[in-house]
Amino acid sequence: MQHHKIGIIGGTGKEGAGLAARMSFAGHHVTIGSRVLEKAQRCAQEFMTLNRLKMAAGSNRDAVLASDIVILTVPFNSQLATLESVKFELQGKLLVDATVPLMPPKVSQVQLPKEGSAVVMAQKLLGNGVRVVSAFQNVSAHYLRDLSHPIDCDVIVCGNDETACDTIIELARSIRVRAFYGGALCNSAAIEALTSVLIAINRRYKVFASGIQISGVPSST
Amino acid sequence: MQHHKIGIIGGTGKEGAGLAARMSFAGHHVTIGSRVLEKAQRCAQEFMTLNRLKMAAGSNRDAVLASDIVILTVPFNSQLATLESVKFELQGKLLVDATVPLMPPKVSQVQLPKEGSAVVMAQKLLGNGVRVVSAFQNVSAHYLRDLSHPIDCDVIVCGNDETACDTIIELARSIRVRAFYGGALCNSAAIEALTSVLIAINRRYKVFASGIQISGVPSST
Repeated sequence: MQHHKIGIIGGTGKEGAGLAARMSFAGHHVTIGSRVLEKAQRCAQEFMTLNRLKMAAGSNRDAVLASDIVILTVPFNSQLATLESVKFELQGKLLVDATVPLMPPKVSQVQLPKEGSAVVMAQKLLGNGVRVVSAFQNVSAHYLRDLSHPIDCDVIVCGNDETACDTIIELARSIRVRAFYGGALCNSAAIEALTSVLIAINRRYKVFASGIQISGVPSST
Repeated sequence: MQHHKIGIIGGTGKEGAGLAARMSFAGHHVTIGSRVLEKAQRCAQEFMTLNRLKMAAGSNRDAVLASDIVILTVPFNSQLATLESVKFELQGKLLVDATVPLMPPKVSQVQLPKEGSAVVMAQKLLGNGVRVVSAFQNVSAHYLRDLSHPIDCDVIVCGNDETACDTIIELARSIRVRAFYGGALCNSAAIEALTSVLIAINRRYKVFASGIQISGVPSST
């Protein structure tokens, strides 16, 4: 397995910290980024204390500069402003956008952004110098953080650069998540919107981490 | 189990005929509807010959009039015109819209309709006198038609009338498909769009009937 240098923008949030933990545990070199340096440092320190996981910490900009793969895990309403702040540093890198266009308070209802998909907006902002894919939108932060818990939610990777998608499919598999190529970047609209459906399912069936799995594809592929 | 009178608009198409077969097999009273009466009659005759399944046949209007639950399975580009033609007869009934907004030739790419969701357009056209839910968009027509084949794709039922949704969840379960409530009607946007993702998965992994399953919800619910 190839080890990557991974920067996580918004790495102190629940989803970001969960991904950081899994990826560090799998042997990747992880830098937790945050708008507030001290928060990133505190988060990295906690992982060291609790899980003996060694991670770097820095500003979001530091996290981008230290990495070849950057994962964005911030709330929808700060997605574009955050990307704008590291737009220059991201050029030439691979960005994995995990943004879900949830618009509180109605988070259990699909509210499509004007372009249909948050990641399509990201690609437009960043330009063609950044390879952008989307992934990890539906994986429960709760289970990510608990390293002993198997993740029974598949990851669908969408992007216009198939080689970049394959890299992220391998990355997902390295943290023992089933992952599939889901088509062009615009297909992310379906996966992003699905998160509201899963929230509705959680509420209706009184569970807290429903997910999706792809059927009809052999696990060996 | 409650048996329903079910009319299928566009019942001679692959998806419609597959649902007709499964529902007739489960004991429901099915009327196959078509724009062309003779096609519906021929289809019903074939089911009698091949599977010993007894179904009624008629125009789309006949199928609506004979039923309390109506399932719409026509291509996206004829969805609204078809509904317009039976708008009056549908009042007071429960409509299950299985329409997927595929826009050939790029069927493996999500192309959201202006309103985001085909079924939201249907509800707008029909008015509040018709209870509209969406379901069955992702189930492979191929497997539906082969009665001996288990269906390993879950059905997500979206709708603003939860009682209507529950009726369709029970209907899906009566043909031995796992079904879940997926939230408000607008959430159908995610499920409709998912069909293009599944087509992309089929192409990439050289399978012909990928599907989705919900994880993290006990099967007993």
